[in-house]
Amino acid sequence: MKSYKTLEQIFKKINDLEQTKSVLHWDMAVVMPSGGSAARGEQISTIESIRHAIITDEGIKDLLDDAMSNTRQFNHWQKANLRKMESVWKHNNAVPQKLVTELSKLGTQCEMVWREARPANDFKKFAPALKKVIEVVKEIAKAKGSAFNCSPYDALIDQYDMGRKTKQIDIIFDDLKGFLPDFTSAVIEKQKKDKKFQKIKGSFPVEAQKALGKKIMDAVGFNFEQGRVDESRHPFCGGYKSDVRITARYNEEDFLSGMMAILHETGHAMYEAGLPDNWQGLPVGDSAGMTVHESQSLLLEMQAGRTLEFFEYATPLIAETLKIKNKNLTAGNLYLTSTRVTPSLIRVDADEVTYPAHILLRYYLEKYLLSGDMDVYDLPEAWSQGMEKFLGIVPDSDANGCMQDIHWVDGSLGYFPTYTLGAISAAQIFAEAKNQIPDLMKNISNGEFAPLIAWLGVNVHEKGSSLSSDEILKSATGKTLDVETYKNYLSSKYLGE
Amino acid sequence: MKSYKTLEQIFKKINDLEQTKSVLHWDMAVVMPSGGSAARGEQISTIESIRHAIITDEGIKDLLDDAMSNTRQFNHWQKANLRKMESVWKHNNAVPQKLVTELSKLGTQCEMVWREARPANDFKKFAPALKKVIEVVKEIAKAKGSAFNCSPYDALIDQYDMGRKTKQIDIIFDDLKGFLPDFTSAVIEKQKKDKKFQKIKGSFPVEAQKALGKKIMDAVGFNFEQGRVDESRHPFCGGYKSDVRITARYNEEDFLSGMMAILHETGHAMYEAGLPDNWQGLPVGDSAGMTVHESQSLLLEMQAGRTLEFFEYATPLIAETLKIKNKNLTAGNLYLTSTRVTPSLIRVDADEVTYPAHILLRYYLEKYLLSGDMDVYDLPEAWSQGMEKFLGIVPDSDANGCMQDIHWVDGSLGYFPTYTLGAISAAQIFAEAKNQIPDLMKNISNGEFAPLIAWLGVNVHEKGSSLSSDEILKSATGKTLDVETYKNYLSSKYLGE
Repeated sequence: MKSYKTLEQIFKKINDLEQTKSVLHWDMAVVMPSGGSAARGEQISTIESIRHAIITDEGIKDLLDDAMSNTRQFNHWQKANLRKMESVWKHNNAVPQKLVTELSKLGTQCEMVWREARPANDFKKFAPALKKVIEVVKEIAKAKGSAFNCSPYDALIDQYDMGRKTKQIDIIFDDLKGFLPDFTSAVIEKQKKDKKFQKIKGSFPVEAQKALGKKIMDAVGFNFEQGRVDESRHPFCGGYKSDVRITARYNEEDFLSGMMAILHETGHAMYEAGLPDNWQGLPVGDSAGMTVHESQSLLLEMQAGRTLEFFEYATPLIAETLKIKNKNLTAGNLYLTSTRVTPSLIRVDADEVTYPAHILLRYYLEKYLLSGDMDVYDLPEAWSQGMEKFLGIVPDSDANGCMQDIHWVDGSLGYFPTYTLGAISAAQIFAEAKNQIPDLMKNISNGEFAPLIAWLGVNVHEKGSSLSSDEILKSATGKTLDVETYKNYLSSKYLGE
Repeated sequence: MKSYKTLEQIFKKINDLEQTKSVLHWDMAVVMPSGGSAARGEQISTIESIRHAIITDEGIKDLLDDAMSNTRQFNHWQKANLRKMESVWKHNNAVPQKLVTELSKLGTQCEMVWREARPANDFKKFAPALKKVIEVVKEIAKAKGSAFNCSPYDALIDQYDMGRKTKQIDIIFDDLKGFLPDFTSAVIEKQKKDKKFQKIKGSFPVEAQKALGKKIMDAVGFNFEQGRVDESRHPFCGGYKSDVRITARYNEEDFLSGMMAILHETGHAMYEAGLPDNWQGLPVGDSAGMTVHESQSLLLEMQAGRTLEFFEYATPLIAETLKIKNKNLTAGNLYLTSTRVTPSLIRVDADEVTYPAHILLRYYLEKYLLSGDMDVYDLPEAWSQGMEKFLGIVPDSDANGCMQDIHWVDGSLGYFPTYTLGAISAAQIFAEAKNQIPDLMKNISNGEFAPLIAWLGVNVHEKGSSLSSDEILKSATGKTLDVETYKNYLSSKYLGE
């Protein structure tokens, strides 16, 4: 127990450094003047190098071995905590420091090239920088694969969703690959025949939109004494349990986009805020990874939010806060507007139905990049083929094709699948919440989110990472990842089947 | 040179941690929700413990010894850099870590007591907590005194103004002690006979006051791409050269208070922004301590700002930005208002003439506390006697007496004198600037601050801490601290002599 307690101290210190980095990142995205960039880079790099030095200290291996040699007195949480410590340790010690520094350097360089090459639609300029990044990622993935005794790609995915394997993802994504194209066509056909949505035209001041966002966050149960909402170029959720910070971006012509982003990020925030009190600052007190995180944001945005019931609640609030008098401002019309399906080139603008196709494309491509079955220079063609196959459209440029995302630019391969695994999880969790909370949809139509959030608290948030994401799903819904529930949800919502 | 280069690397890392702490503090004061306090405390304490571990690492002593054994090839800046490194090292290594932790703990406890005891005017409750703090400060001061071969109080002052000695301060403050009471009475008498000032009555929206503040900062030359201005409970200047952040507090009934606070903090900010480019991140690239820092804020607020010329520039701007139509809104009346002298109980609200009396009182009292000539329990009586003697008024309560400042609460003895040493320096520096920039006051009346800021850049800011504060003063004005120049300035400004 003594070694374990020492490890807890060390990991609490690491947590302080992680939280500090999160404050530095929030500041950079929300308030920092441009002149502060260089100094900020140095600060983050110094904090990160200190964190790395702590987790790669020689003594940790002995402490882990000693703690793991005798866990009989440990409760479930302590065992899970120790497992997660070991996993963090492995991820940090599997790879020589030289490679980590190399990736960080190449990633920064590649991002600089990307920021110029993307607007200029210059893939030839971008490719060599990306190729260098991918080569180092390959080496890192191989080293981590050895340490975790799994495939290189599995080792990368493990960074974002501990224990998740491509074997399981392949089955799910192959299923979706078969399902989505016809389904999407059917939805589009149906929406052509259905009642048309009417875009609410007007100019909606950002300040009023911010007020609207806060009212909705308040209704959901966001605690403004333990968090904030601000504006940034890309919406995100940062911070930690006692100080969760979300951001949104507002469009004066389109209040729905900012509002749905708020709902999405609030889903992330409620998860962070609901993590177990008793394990704050320790690995097991953290979220169970990006799949569960995305399930919580999508649950609020898609499952609860893009529903007729949600708009029954939100419509009068929108009318009042944005001072809109328009006969088209009805729950029904906003629901139609926010569930409109149109294949498009850009992932972050995609609707609920076409989004997974974007992810499938990226999943297969990054697998090929990593295995060496595809070269970076073949990306544009492969991208076009994939888009044609999955969505029936072809990018007009590389800027709107394989150069649109930042993930590969800084070497974050393995992240993309969690978006769709999160969407599937969200469908399962919400279906179960509906089963167990009989008035759930009625509650939502009244702006009463407390029963839902309480249920999520018990069944998801308070588990921290004492269980894996599949175990959380199983304990909450009786099933691990289940693509059928997801397809049924989509069919019912979009085809009324 | 190799040891010296290694030291540079270590001190750059320390600088990254200092900057990180500064971001964490700014965030806490300006944007952090209340729920984040506990986590923030842990983060700061972890960063501080890492900083302390780095500077107390055994290897540093050898590096310093080696670097100092052969400095023939060093230029002036490198020598000064090394001297400052040694001083930082001494301050951190002179005191056992146990004492530092003890002070931090007792300081936090005392602050908690103070936050309740001050509003309740309960000195009896406050005194035991303060006494514990003072006892530990005594031990620390003694240990630092041994390391620096100086008196305990000198060692504390050295933390804020390197190399400054009480021997010099005593002469200056004893002189002021004789000068101020009669002078203050004479000013009050004169102001009774002079034209009365007319307070500009009205309600001035905070947003408009903020816009006014930004216009003035802009005129002074503050670069908003390398800094910010925000609102906080207590105005301060934080950040660093490439990202300097000031805050102000606004009073809807009194636009002058916020405006003068902006000017004061902008003075601090221009100093930070003007520090030498080539030495960023190294000790010698830092400011030359709190006396010079305060000289820069007071130079802008008092020497340049509380002048008829400044209000000639600012009055139309105030009228336009705050939309004031009032026949009393004249440069002459605003000058009279902002130079009004009235003895008062609270230091932070004191005017230019009575402010030093507050400092003298604290200087003598903290000396007595430290030497043991006075006990904490005797503070209220000593405070009353001092106020009576220096300002002719007696506090109505301990809350408005010896419990008003936070400095002693967290053990920061030795800081107070720098306020008045800064005021003296400001008078000397501004007098010299006037000599060397013939149109200086005319420039100011036109809102042209560039010649002044450029002159300060060359003569003060760009020196970093390559010179001591007295050396900077001497090189800029030909004299070290000179109380006569200060008294002449006050006499001329307030008695027209």
